[in-house]
Amino acid sequence: MSKPTIGIIMGSESDLKIMKEAAEFLDELKIPFELTIVSAHRTPKRMMDYATSARGRGLKVIIAGAGGAAHLPGMIASFTTLPVIGVPIKSSNSIDGWDSVLSILQMPSGVPVATVALNGAKNAGVLAAQIIGTFDNDVTKKLTRFKTTLQKKVEKSFREIESKGWRKAAL
Amino acid sequence: MSKPTIGIIMGSESDLKIMKEAAEFLDELKIPFELTIVSAHRTPKRMMDYATSARGRGLKVIIAGAGGAAHLPGMIASFTTLPVIGVPIKSSNSIDGWDSVLSILQMPSGVPVATVALNGAKNAGVLAAQIIGTFDNDVTKKLTRFKTTLQKKVEKSFREIESKGWRKAAL
Amino acid sequence: MSKPTIGIIMGSESDLKIMKEAAEFLDELKIPFELTIVSAHRTPKRMMDYATSARGRGLKVIIAGAGGAAHLPGMIASFTTLPVIGVPIKSSNSIDGWDSVLSILQMPSGVPVATVALNGAKNAGVLAAQIIGTFDNDVTKKLTRFKTTLQKKVEKSFREIESKGWRKAAL
Amino acid sequence: MSKPTIGIIMGSESDLKIMKEAAEFLDELKIPFELTIVSAHRTPKRMMDYATSARGRGLKVIIAGAGGAAHLPGMIASFTTLPVIGVPIKSSNSIDGWDSVLSILQMPSGVPVATVALNGAKNAGVLAAQIIGTFDNDVTKKLTRFKTTLQKKVEKSFREIESKGWRKAAL
Amino acid sequence: MSKPTIGIIMGSESDLKIMKEAAEFLDELKIPFELTIVSAHRTPKRMMDYATSARGRGLKVIIAGAGGAAHLPGMIASFTTLPVIGVPIKSSNSIDGWDSVLSILQMPSGVPVATVALNGAKNAGVLAAQIIGTFDNDVTKKLTRFKTTLQKKVEKSFREIESKGWRKAAL
Amino acid sequence: MSKPTIGIIMGSESDLKIMKEAAEFLDELKIPFELTIVSAHRTPKRMMDYATSARGRGLKVIIAGAGGAAHLPGMIASFTTLPVIGVPIKSSNSIDGWDSVLSILQMPSGVPVATVALNGAKNAGVLAAQIIGTFDNDVTKKLTRFKTTLQKKVEKSFREIESKGWRKAAL
Amino acid sequence: MSKPTIGIIMGSESDLKIMKEAAEFLDELKIPFELTIVSAHRTPKRMMDYATSARGRGLKVIIAGAGGAAHLPGMIASFTTLPVIGVPIKSSNSIDGWDSVLSILQMPSGVPVATVALNGAKNAGVLAAQIIGTFDNDVTKKLTRFKTTLQKKVEKSFREIESKGWRKAAL
Amino acid sequence: MSKPTIGIIMGSESDLKIMKEAAEFLDELKIPFELTIVSAHRTPKRMMDYATSARGRGLKVIIAGAGGAAHLPGMIASFTTLPVIGVPIKSSNSIDGWDSVLSILQMPSGVPVATVALNGAKNAGVLAAQIIGTFDNDVTKKLTRFKTTLQKKVEKSFREIESKGWRKAAL
Repeated sequence: MSKPTIGIIMGSESDLKIMKEAAEFLDELKIPFELTIVSAHRTPKRMMDYATSARGRGLKVIIAGAGGAAHLPGMIASFTTLPVIGVPIKSSNSIDGWDSVLSILQMPSGVPVATVALNGAKNAGVLAAQIIGTFDNDVTKKLTRFKTTLQKKVEKSFREIESKGWRKAAL
Repeated sequence: MSKPTIGIIMGSESDLKIMKEAAEFLDELKIPFELTIVSAHRTPKRMMDYATSARGRGLKVIIAGAGGAAHLPGMIASFTTLPVIGVPIKSSNSIDGWDSVLSILQMPSGVPVATVALNGAKNAGVLAAQIIGTFDNDVTKKLTRFKTTLQKKVEKSFREIESKGWRKAAL
Repeated sequence: MSKPTIGIIMGSESDLKIMKEAAEFLDELKIPFELTIVSAHRTPKRMMDYATSARGRGLKVIIAGAGGAAHLPGMIASFTTLPVIGVPIKSSNSIDGWDSVLSILQMPSGVPVATVALNGAKNAGVLAAQIIGTFDNDVTKKLTRFKTTLQKKVEKSFREIESKGWRKAAL
Repeated sequence: MSKPTIGIIMGSESDLKIMKEAAEFLDELKIPFELTIVSAHRTPKRMMDYATSARGRGLKVIIAGAGGAAHLPGMIASFTTLPVIGVPIKSSNSIDGWDSVLSILQMPSGVPVATVALNGAKNAGVLAAQIIGTFDNDVTKKLTRFKTTLQKKVEKSFREIESKGWRKAAL
Repeated sequence: MSKPTIGIIMGSESDLKIMKEAAEFLDELKIPFELTIVSAHRTPKRMMDYATSARGRGLKVIIAGAGGAAHLPGMIASFTTLPVIGVPIKSSNSIDGWDSVLSILQMPSGVPVATVALNGAKNAGVLAAQIIGTFDNDVTKKLTRFKTTLQKKVEKSFREIESKGWRKAAL
Repeated sequence: MSKPTIGIIMGSESDLKIMKEAAEFLDELKIPFELTIVSAHRTPKRMMDYATSARGRGLKVIIAGAGGAAHLPGMIASFTTLPVIGVPIKSSNSIDGWDSVLSILQMPSGVPVATVALNGAKNAGVLAAQIIGTFDNDVTKKLTRFKTTLQKKVEKSFREIESKGWRKAAL
Repeated sequence: MSKPTIGIIMGSESDLKIMKEAAEFLDELKIPFELTIVSAHRTPKRMMDYATSARGRGLKVIIAGAGGAAHLPGMIASFTTLPVIGVPIKSSNSIDGWDSVLSILQMPSGVPVATVALNGAKNAGVLAAQIIGTFDNDVTKKLTRFKTTLQKKVEKSFREIESKGWRKAAL
Repeated sequence: MSKPTIGIIMGSESDLKIMKEAAEFLDELKIPFELTIVSAHRTPKRMMDYATSARGRGLKVIIAGAGGAAHLPGMIASFTTLPVIGVPIKSSNSIDGWDSVLSILQMPSGVPVATVALNGAKNAGVLAAQIIGTFDNDVTKKLTRFKTTLQKKVEKSFREIESKGWRKAAL
């Protein structure tokens, strides 16, 4: 497999059950990526190293997931000019997810984080692929096929309802 | 100026006072863009045409700002595989901005919108430039210079406090 | 059964477990309806076709349910002058339902969506019947009987408490 | 003018500055309506009389606006089978409008209120007209013209930006 | 038992599992009360009759519990000058209880409801007893004993921790 | 004037601009009260003395207003068996009033505070009078007259609209 | 063991399952502490005694945990000049924890409470140790070792992912 | 003046209008401190240097204020074992202050931030002094005097009301 262009990081191994959806999507599209654990609060130097070396190592996009007072995506963004995608994770003891959403979204002027939905790791993978697709036609074609798949699933489901009737489909 | 690679759209002319900050940033970095009004709810066909023709017209990124039940960014994303950046706008009669933040952020699986902070149009411009910068070294260099500028402003302000003293600086 | 006057649509088959309550209510009142899956984000053209053809096909009211960044009801409303009833659905990964409530309720001036309670699909059915009842006396009569039923249930429950005593009724 | 088919009521005269937008819209479309003050908490018997006599007096739709613990729309709905449109009003001492939104929206099963956006009285007028339009083609035609007007305003605004340039339009 | 001075009502029999705590407390203190189901939205006339006849029947305080768009306590208060205690109930499909809290608490000027905590039916019973206690020394004495009981339970628990050690007490 | 039966207290003199509405209402109804400043956090011993001596001094009800982390009403309630009415005040630096609402409302089992709306000091006065009215027929009569006044104001306002027309009334 | 320098208190024995994490952390670092139950609302005098005697008994820091309308930390702070650490606890019937967070955090000017995350008792223990560490080098050394442990756990987890691969680690 | 034991930092010079209240309080108590600008997102290396050198330079406590996605307090805490006090600041474009409150408060296990109220910079100063006071009796005495001052202000205000009457005091 060629050199990874996307880095997926998360604050803790327990976030992997959510963040793996980004990895699975990129795997499905055969877009090379790397995945590891980087904690803003427990390994701040590792975080700094990760972020400052990212472009040099060939990364084009970084996906960072974190819960609670989620500082990882924003701090990564402070060290690099690569686009950073933030995934708010609803961790245990979270206040309904609001903490991670707001700590990732509300970045100050000059240092954006591209935030996706709560637990929206798959969408972070899609967005990363879309960014790669801005200069890689092969990826664009794969995304077009993926969009068709989404549409087909809807078509399948309404045909099922038409054939079965809504009562049976609802069971 | 060369062909625009970024499209900036918004639901209403009244959003321009916020959204112009994206335009000003791109202007400053001399990244060509186009800017117009597209309303999801009042001109849905125009929205569809805008989104489906975007890639063909050479756009690489779309920035979409909207307030209230803000459907523009998400609907644009449903019609294209380009990355879409959403700017939640705190419009009048908004419920403190929560409506636009949540209607842009919480997109379903498969159709991401890269959401930035409430009224964060400048950051939408920065993020769009970062995406262009993934394949355009010239833009990357400009972003590095911009990051240095941010840092210099902080340095200037702490030097001012050191020389003046905090009491005078606070006036 | 005569031609449907009410269309029930939803963003995904998984919404059917909520939305079927609208269908069950209309079935009970023998008001003809159609029910299918239309996704704003995955089948936007189908959505446009559904909405623009609705009046011509004889529909009088459209009930649209969606979760998260729920754009379906509002986008349907942008394409038709029929009354659109929106049902916010508390989907998985929803931020407590606030996302769907606000993305449906806070529509901009000129394009209303008649929003009902979170997961309030039955009430969407009742409201649709009430709208049909504005010009169909037969439906009005059924609604009057339904209102009496609601009242009777309360009467039954307070009689039960009177006869059993509250301690036993609470078991 | 012919007999009113729409009743507009509100809890207090101070709500008139918001609720008049419903009246102005209906006036513009020449749809006859009545408008008065009915308070759920200060004139509960008047409220009951208003609601129970509404259908007999020829009303087809009731628009009710209220702020704070906004009980008027829901209580009207408990006394009639007519569709009731609720307008949450952000009154002084409101907790950011959440109180009126939730007290109107979250009605129990069997008694819906068609809720519109916070302070969305104009949309209540549009929705009422859409309901009348389900059986009155003349009103439908007016609504189609109104939709065209909405679209034309957007077209005017993007033409202005094209001709003036966004910098001048933003001033 | 002597004539009830406190009326406990609730919108639905399903609220009894919460509201019985008010009844149990009053039972414990041997303060006579009545308990029944009165629905603001499904039996509005019964509600009006209940409220207007309450003082005449000898009631001194009314405790009213309701969930969602909880109109029962406020509407009862609109028909009587007796103090009304409102218990917000977190019903299914509630938006985390905020709907019932705000629809009961945020009453307009002139028509208060004495609101207690979410699901706080026991406290409604205590508060009702405190009101009776303003003119009934016997009840005051019972309340003083109840307050001592509360204190004793805390004393028992800290003694347990002292004797067992916190590790064992935490098991 | 006879001995006060109601005590009005507040955490700070700056709360007087809100809390005076309770005093004005009681003055209007000629119900004797006392009013002073008692701070839970700055004069905790004074608070304890106030609460423990209240019943002995002849008070029947205590109205306590406070903002932010509003502990005054709940702490007063912990020291007395008198009914305590809590008025949440939206102070500067409040988080939209949510802090005072929740710190007053959400009292633990056994120690209720009768909470009224945000800044609802007038309603605290009305509720206090209603409690006095449970054993004082003279006060009940005054409350009945007050309720009639509320109703008359509504009647005056709808008559004004009928005579003037809504357009003029809205000016 | 030497005299305790940290006091851990909580409103109810049911809070022990959360608050024990503070105790366990201090135990691990061999920092002597005391732990007991003190209820602001049920044993207000005990609370006052606890707080006023704390410094004299040798305490340097007080950790206070409470849920709902959580008055314990703030009231303790009103009686002492020792630093007070507040732990908001998400109790049953809490409104998602917002009540305890806001009643502890939003203290008025002059009387701070050092608030930690919802259910963040372990962090309260760490913070208390950090305060002791400002004058006790031995504790500082232990905290440095603890910080290294945190870092090592992250290192272990990313090495596991590297060796196993993310798919296996996610199982 | 002797060497500073407290460091006050903030993300931007615009925060100084809030944060100066911490400085003014420490000045009043003659506790030496330093104050400067350190931005987590614009000068991340400076932030790291500040935090890692803090203990060596003699600091005992760090007060860090920041708005929006407020990462400064938490990131400082990740680099040091000194106690860090976080001040959430309600900046422009903040979502009512919730963003800064939650990004500072909800820190993960092992890395606490002692959070004070929104815009509560004065309380951060008081808390820092209380921490210094755990080993410095001179500071403790000053804090005791400060507490007396708080109490005296309340006494002055209730005396004013007693002498003037509440009506005049309310003007």
